[in-house]
Amino acid sequence: MAEGRVTVIDIARAAGVSKSTVSLVLQGSSSVKEETRNRINAAIRDLGYVYNRGAATLRQTGSRSKIIGVIVNDLTNSFFAELAVGIDMVVQSAGYVQFLSSCAENPDRQQELIGSMREHGISGLIICPARGTQASDFKALESSGIPVVVAVRNLPGTKASTLMSANAVGTRAATQHLLSLGHRRIAFLGGFSDMAVFDERTGGYRDALREAGIQVDDELVINAPSSRAGGVEAIGRALAVAERPTAAVCLNDAVAFGVCDGLRARRLEPGADFAVVGFDDVIEAKTAVPALTTVSVDPQGMGRRAATLLLKQINSNSSEGEAVTTAVRLVVRESSGKAINVRQEMA
Amino acid sequence: MAEGRVTVIDIARAAGVSKSTVSLVLQGSSSVKEETRNRINAAIRDLGYVYNRGAATLRQTGSRSKIIGVIVNDLTNSFFAELAVGIDMVVQSAGYVQFLSSCAENPDRQQELIGSMREHGISGLIICPARGTQASDFKALESSGIPVVVAVRNLPGTKASTLMSANAVGTRAATQHLLSLGHRRIAFLGGFSDMAVFDERTGGYRDALREAGIQVDDELVINAPSSRAGGVEAIGRALAVAERPTAAVCLNDAVAFGVCDGLRARRLEPGADFAVVGFDDVIEAKTAVPALTTVSVDPQGMGRRAATLLLKQINSNSSEGEAVTTAVRLVVRESSGKAINVRQEMA
Repeated sequence: MAEGRVTVIDIARAAGVSKSTVSLVLQGSSSVKEETRNRINAAIRDLGYVYNRGAATLRQTGSRSKIIGVIVNDLTNSFFAELAVGIDMVVQSAGYVQFLSSCAENPDRQQELIGSMREHGISGLIICPARGTQASDFKALESSGIPVVVAVRNLPGTKASTLMSANAVGTRAATQHLLSLGHRRIAFLGGFSDMAVFDERTGGYRDALREAGIQVDDELVINAPSSRAGGVEAIGRALAVAERPTAAVCLNDAVAFGVCDGLRARRLEPGADFAVVGFDDVIEAKTAVPALTTVSVDPQGMGRRAATLLLKQINSNSSEGEAVTTAVRLVVRESSGKAINVRQEMA
Repeated sequence: MAEGRVTVIDIARAAGVSKSTVSLVLQGSSSVKEETRNRINAAIRDLGYVYNRGAATLRQTGSRSKIIGVIVNDLTNSFFAELAVGIDMVVQSAGYVQFLSSCAENPDRQQELIGSMREHGISGLIICPARGTQASDFKALESSGIPVVVAVRNLPGTKASTLMSANAVGTRAATQHLLSLGHRRIAFLGGFSDMAVFDERTGGYRDALREAGIQVDDELVINAPSSRAGGVEAIGRALAVAERPTAAVCLNDAVAFGVCDGLRARRLEPGADFAVVGFDDVIEAKTAVPALTTVSVDPQGMGRRAATLLLKQINSNSSEGEAVTTAVRLVVRESSGKAINVRQEMA
């Protein structure tokens, strides 16, 4: 058989089935028995057949081929890796593949990736916007009719669907936990005010302090990249404040791990000498030493929900956005330490 | 201007340049001044122009558009995340974008991803083959003329370019290091014999033991998934062996971190009660507690080299494969501990 000229009939012959059974499998139908499907898939592989999904989908629905584009900010932050794993679970069983790209917090690169994904006919896009992204940056994308889910980071004014965790609820609980342990000088570390998620997460932190009758000290809200390196930088600056904090709520777990690194580099033990709380509950949060107290958002679960939300939009052919907020819960482990005695500071 | 009907002329007008200058920028030419290029790119973004690269490239060269496909096995293993970051650096500056997918060690999913990437006109593919992949699985891909770089994991018999680290050299050095500390019962943890990288890495381990006059005990070579969870599983089985090992060389850093978790769960301190050596030198290896002794392969550097190798093939229009082996070096940190006294075992 000549390369590139393998037809459905060749596949059917090799697998010993009818042409229509092969077509069903190619269309991702679940009505074909698994054993038969495996035999057909083996024949497809052996013969090097490439199903022109784009053309087939076009014939069927006048629509696009089966790719879900995903754009995140930092591949080395395991939150995004786990989010992608969750997305994969759902899109795979729906017969899609995920093409993942990172914009590394660069809005220009983000636009380039969106453009490239549009050119290559994605069916939908899940995006965690880069710092400094404006809702207007997605206008062309939205008016092209490609379903979009903005995940993790809010984008005020967007018409796309959004999937956020209850950010303020989470940091409020984290701050209340530190207050209940006796801390009064509590820092907020990481993030920048051009990220909507920063506003939401510092909002919960400020609320909890105010409710406890403590004035927010803006010196203790320290901007830094939302990465491990950002955490190292932030704790360095926090410890240089004249009246030092004794605890910190961090923008995310990556920052919290960096804070722990930075504390150790100064011979301070996280959990014993300084209380640290993260946000996300990535896989390593549980196994880290000390295990990280954090606000759990279930990153894989968020990925699954983002994918489900997107597929729903694709299948309903609707571009109407939905706003979904997922629940969070505080998971208390070792990094926030035991109750401390800082009553003298309150005198 | 009507959406989707923005032309090069509109861009030229908005940016105050000629139509041919816009074309040069769209084609990625470096002959346009940066300031002008930035102004044109801003106009492209503002107007929502999508350059049909596929069509333009087709007109120019009869060839493909500008995507590099990358397929890895496990997004939550930061080795692959760092590899992707390295690839991004190089492909970005060459005017490509990276579409990353994970096959989660599933050869069927891998074939589906390859098929989908072919359909969508990738310019080239960098792939870390899933467990159980045969060179024949890539035959159709290779004969389609798309340049392929097989990275990290070898695929005996492939005609594609390969980029491997000096696996046996690395594990030989790791094993010699443990021998020099006095260890005699040294386990090899993680991986399966249907991964070529497993053969190479256990090869170096076996060589070092033999050279030291120690017979390899196959009970101490323990198969497990090449993940953190696999490491927890493997150390559990290693510690159940009648004559317990006192040290382990691990397939990779992910396994080594799992081994540390598993030791702690049994109240053994890695580095003090049991020596652990990893392979990769991912970012966390340095900051982990204890810091991980490991064979450094410079994952980002490997990503950059894989991308450079692929771009060279794309630009030369050659499908001739090259085999590149990258150097490794042992980085001694805390997890391998101090010299121990196990001389009684040698009596």
